[in-house]
Amino acid sequence: MSAAPVLCFDLGGTRMRAALLAPDGTRLAAVEAPTPAREGVGAVLDGLCALALRCRDTGVAPQAAGLCAPGPLDAPGGRMLAPPTLLGWRDVPVSALLGERLGLPVLLENDANAAAVGEQLYGAGQGAGSLVFVTVSTGIGGGVIVDGHVLRGRGGLAGEIGHMKIAEHSTDCACGAQGCFEALASGTALGWRAARVMRARKDGTPPPSGRDVIEAARRGERLARRLVAEHGRWLGRGFANLLHLYAPDVLVMGGGLANGFDLLEPAIRAEIARSAMPSYRETPLLSAALGDAAGLVGMAHIVRQSLPDLGRERKLG
Amino acid sequence: MSAAPVLCFDLGGTRMRAALLAPDGTRLAAVEAPTPAREGVGAVLDGLCALALRCRDTGVAPQAAGLCAPGPLDAPGGRMLAPPTLLGWRDVPVSALLGERLGLPVLLENDANAAAVGEQLYGAGQGAGSLVFVTVSTGIGGGVIVDGHVLRGRGGLAGEIGHMKIAEHSTDCACGAQGCFEALASGTALGWRAARVMRARKDGTPPPSGRDVIEAARRGERLARRLVAEHGRWLGRGFANLLHLYAPDVLVMGGGLANGFDLLEPAIRAEIARSAMPSYRETPLLSAALGDAAGLVGMAHIVRQSLPDLGRERKLG
Repeated sequence: MSAAPVLCFDLGGTRMRAALLAPDGTRLAAVEAPTPAREGVGAVLDGLCALALRCRDTGVAPQAAGLCAPGPLDAPGGRMLAPPTLLGWRDVPVSALLGERLGLPVLLENDANAAAVGEQLYGAGQGAGSLVFVTVSTGIGGGVIVDGHVLRGRGGLAGEIGHMKIAEHSTDCACGAQGCFEALASGTALGWRAARVMRARKDGTPPPSGRDVIEAARRGERLARRLVAEHGRWLGRGFANLLHLYAPDVLVMGGGLANGFDLLEPAIRAEIARSAMPSYRETPLLSAALGDAAGLVGMAHIVRQSLPDLGRERKLG
Repeated sequence: MSAAPVLCFDLGGTRMRAALLAPDGTRLAAVEAPTPAREGVGAVLDGLCALALRCRDTGVAPQAAGLCAPGPLDAPGGRMLAPPTLLGWRDVPVSALLGERLGLPVLLENDANAAAVGEQLYGAGQGAGSLVFVTVSTGIGGGVIVDGHVLRGRGGLAGEIGHMKIAEHSTDCACGAQGCFEALASGTALGWRAARVMRARKDGTPPPSGRDVIEAARRGERLARRLVAEHGRWLGRGFANLLHLYAPDVLVMGGGLANGFDLLEPAIRAEIARSAMPSYRETPLLSAALGDAAGLVGMAHIVRQSLPDLGRERKLG
């Protein structure tokens, strides 16, 4: 483990963030900007480098960098494969491209994996040896930690929980199939669910987002409360599967829809009680604690653990 | 790792087996008998001890013993919790009870976990770092190996794949819920599926078992072939989930229904192609190679890995 600060990036389809992190997880600098997602690979790399410059203004020199990004990606190979939210990113060797510009080794990691590590070290999962982190927003992603290590599987493809089928039918999922957890329980799915009901009611209002529905439910609107309860059932059905499959010490829900965790929780827990066998029902279910920072904090830890390897690769290169 | 032979038991709801295994996995003795499943704990323990005596007739003294048995169980605590196929087994400290009678430390393990280890070391999964073993017979059980280690999770409860929900509805599952992989894709489910069709056809024949359907399909009977194809689709749907969740190097199907693997495989593969994202579709899908011996062979390896701990516990005891 190195004592030097680590420069970390969190590249999302909407926002991109960078931070310079001390060994204890303290952010020495933290900046962000909109992601120029439609302008291609070069524009995004320019944007990340601009964020890096702003971090380096602190005068502290990082020894290594890490980038967490949406999957699917080849983490050991440093390649982003086909993130649906970034236009034109097909098999991009992002670690090499960004590393060349920064003059630093850049480690790549799935963003849900990094957030899982962050939540386990400094967030809702502190003290848990094994943890499942579920990010529920535009889609559903997952990061699984087993005995303190990220579950990677073949090509780092494990934990792709959004495309676990939990029903026979649903609206079409972005992956092309039906019945995916993501198609039934993401923030997007909550918005669609509301839009369908409102179209049926023909009241002329524009289609809402998942966040709109949560806010309406928080104001006490009856239809929104019903939709949130229905949505919580789908989340609970998927979570119950994750409990049987991974048996984590704790399940942490993050992502944009975690803003409505308190409203969703009763329906989630009721469905877990229905769907899960008794031994699984008592697993703690928590809302993420670190918000947007989880990925950056976790990424810094992953980079630190890998520093010796990164050093060796630089010498060979 | 010890060079002494290990005495292993595989306690199933129908048959129980014992074997004396050399360090290279060779069975120096192998015996079996029907399980007196309805006669309670004492009768089963008597039966296991009788098998042990027959193994010891070889003149070779084992240094330790292992028992693999159906879950749910508390492996570290050596307790079987509530196996649905064994009458009256509620929270039984079977490691202590059997160990006392044998004068040997007895390690307990979930039977699907042990079979996964066996198949990885000596069977279909040789050379795979990570493997998912799915046993499809009366129910559906799973053993997951990640980087050479069994995935255990909280209380050893991980990999309970039979109760992963893959549909909203099904016949009632033994666990009380609906839509479980086990309720839709076990050997029992295949028999029920056939029975339902045959009742609808009112042709008076007695309800078939899953094995009967496989045999009829092998003879070329059209209805049986259709049922097997439908069943393969359900298996494929569950397997596709396992690929997304664990991303194993190989998926191995064992259990009684693996006898019909060649007949089921086309429908399984077609459904995986439909349900799984491209990166997951090419995962090798294999039929188990060790048959009934997988659990015993894997158990012996697990005991050997734990021998130092077992020795220490005996001194303390």
